[in-house]
Amino acid sequence: MRELLYEGKAKRIFSTDEEQTVLIEYKDSATAFNGQKKADITGKGRLNNEITSLLFLKLQEQGIPSHFIKRISETEQLVKRVTIIPLEVVVRNIAAGSLSKRLGIEEGKALTKPLVEFYLKNDDLGDPLLTTEHVYELDLATEEELNILKEKALKINTVLSSFFTELGINLIDFKLEFGKDNEGEILLADEISPDTCRLWDKKTNEKLDKDVFRRDLGSLTEAYETILARLGGKQHV
Amino acid sequence: MRELLYEGKAKRIFSTDEEQTVLIEYKDSATAFNGQKKADITGKGRLNNEITSLLFLKLQEQGIPSHFIKRISETEQLVKRVTIIPLEVVVRNIAAGSLSKRLGIEEGKALTKPLVEFYLKNDDLGDPLLTTEHVYELDLATEEELNILKEKALKINTVLSSFFTELGINLIDFKLEFGKDNEGEILLADEISPDTCRLWDKKTNEKLDKDVFRRDLGSLTEAYETILARLGGKQHV
Ligand SMILES: Nc1ncnc2c1ncn2[C@@H]1O[C@H](COP(=O)(O)OP(=O)(O)OP(=O)(O)O)[C@@H](O)[C@H]1O
Ligand SMILES: Nc1ncnc2c1ncn2[C@@H]1O[C@H](COP(=O)(O)OP(=O)(O)OP(=O)(O)O)[C@@H](O)[C@H]1O
Ligand SMILES: [Mg+2]
Ligand SMILES: [Mg+2]
Repeated sequence: MRELLYEGKAKRIFSTDEEQTVLIEYKDSATAFNGQKKADITGKGRLNNEITSLLFLKLQEQGIPSHFIKRISETEQLVKRVTIIPLEVVVRNIAAGSLSKRLGIEEGKALTKPLVEFYLKNDDLGDPLLTTEHVYELDLATEEELNILKEKALKINTVLSSFFTELGINLIDFKLEFGKDNEGEILLADEISPDTCRLWDKKTNEKLDKDVFRRDLGSLTEAYETILARLGGKQHV
Repeated sequence: MRELLYEGKAKRIFSTDEEQTVLIEYKDSATAFNGQKKADITGKGRLNNEITSLLFLKLQEQGIPSHFIKRISETEQLVKRVTIIPLEVVVRNIAAGSLSKRLGIEEGKALTKPLVEFYLKNDDLGDPLLTTEHVYELDLATEEELNILKEKALKINTVLSSFFTELGINLIDFKLEFGKDNEGEILLADEISPDTCRLWDKKTNEKLDKDVFRRDLGSLTEAYETILARLGGKQHV
């Protein structure tokens, strides 16, 4: 029995017959700047569903568990139900986007080492940056949990960075979400796709991610197809 | 020989005959919102010079050294020359201002424990909030130095909070600047005044600080005179 549990900007979450399993349907809508810019882009849902599935599988092979169970259609996947920790965990290898703008670091500058940031998952407040002391004050995670999140995020970065490097792609930065399963275990959740990563072609520096949409740089589906093709999921290209 | 070294929004810094000593002149100008709101307020320079002097003396009595040497006129004081660390160190006891706005914490809510934040001292960037990882990436301070800053800030908070409490005033939050003297010692510097603190009357919750100017709540000099009078520096009231 499928019941809509939540509809977000990019995905719909449905219940399934299995209490601890939910179905994620990837939508064709693109949004940016906290929903101020919107468009319907045919094929985006399929692309993000496939790319996320491939990346979660890759991570599982490398010993990094996630909510991912399996892809069941072009736009749908089954995942473990978790209670999302309301933090966006951002890992950055190269300065870009809000980091460059806020701190005046030139876009494209390599950081000394991978930087992990926490943002409050709250659209009304515009997902503000948090310090660790803010996280504790707001009771969003304990020090121990924050260290687990950071450690997992850095491990994911190591695996994904070297994987993308093999494909001629530079993993500039990305956003993760984590949740707790019914046993209280912290699990990687949500999605990892060109919507949530900055991916630049190694040779040309061409942007192959949502910045194509944010900054009107060309065809979003062409960019996402390029990523999917390099990941080896060529069946739909 | 007095030479203007730097003119800021609130103070002028002059050289003196003594290489390691500079003279700070407190100006009568009030600014807010990164300089967007401005006014000339007669008496403000004198008030902040006196209040800062009294507070730095109080801190020295309690074993907290600072750049402060002595007040030499109504609007001037001599201080040790330091190289300012480009961080604004903010301590908060009660939610207010940007913390309330950014994180949706009701203004006036007591925090679980004193919160220390670091902001980049850079007017062009609007003094952005920094995480400790940003501080290291920008090479603004080492982990050891950051711990020293935090420890000093919390100690200053303990002393000032109980001092203001005796005077019927609630120390809501405040901003500090630190510098390094010619021996590399980290020293409290700049000013501590109603320009850089939020001070609320314990009984009435009346604001006795720069928010009077920011939010057009009445006479700034009356509010600052109240603070000075309670501190015991009544000579000019
Ligand atoms: N395994 C899971 N169990 C439960 N919820 C999940 C799981 N994985 C992801 N979610 C949540 O489902 C929602 C996915 O929808 P979508 O990405 O469209 O949301 P959104 O528009 O980005 O809004 P939000 O700010 O809520 O993320 C998110 O709130 C996400 O945190
Ligand atoms: N002991 C000191 N030695 C050298 N510089 C100092 C000392 N104490 C304070 N300063 C610096 O002198 C300046 C004081 O001027 P003012 O407070 O008017 O500056 P401002 O307008 O706030 O600008 P900003 O603080 O952003 O430079 C500040 O830059 C402050 O950091
Ligand atoms: Mg989302
Ligand atoms: Mg100043």
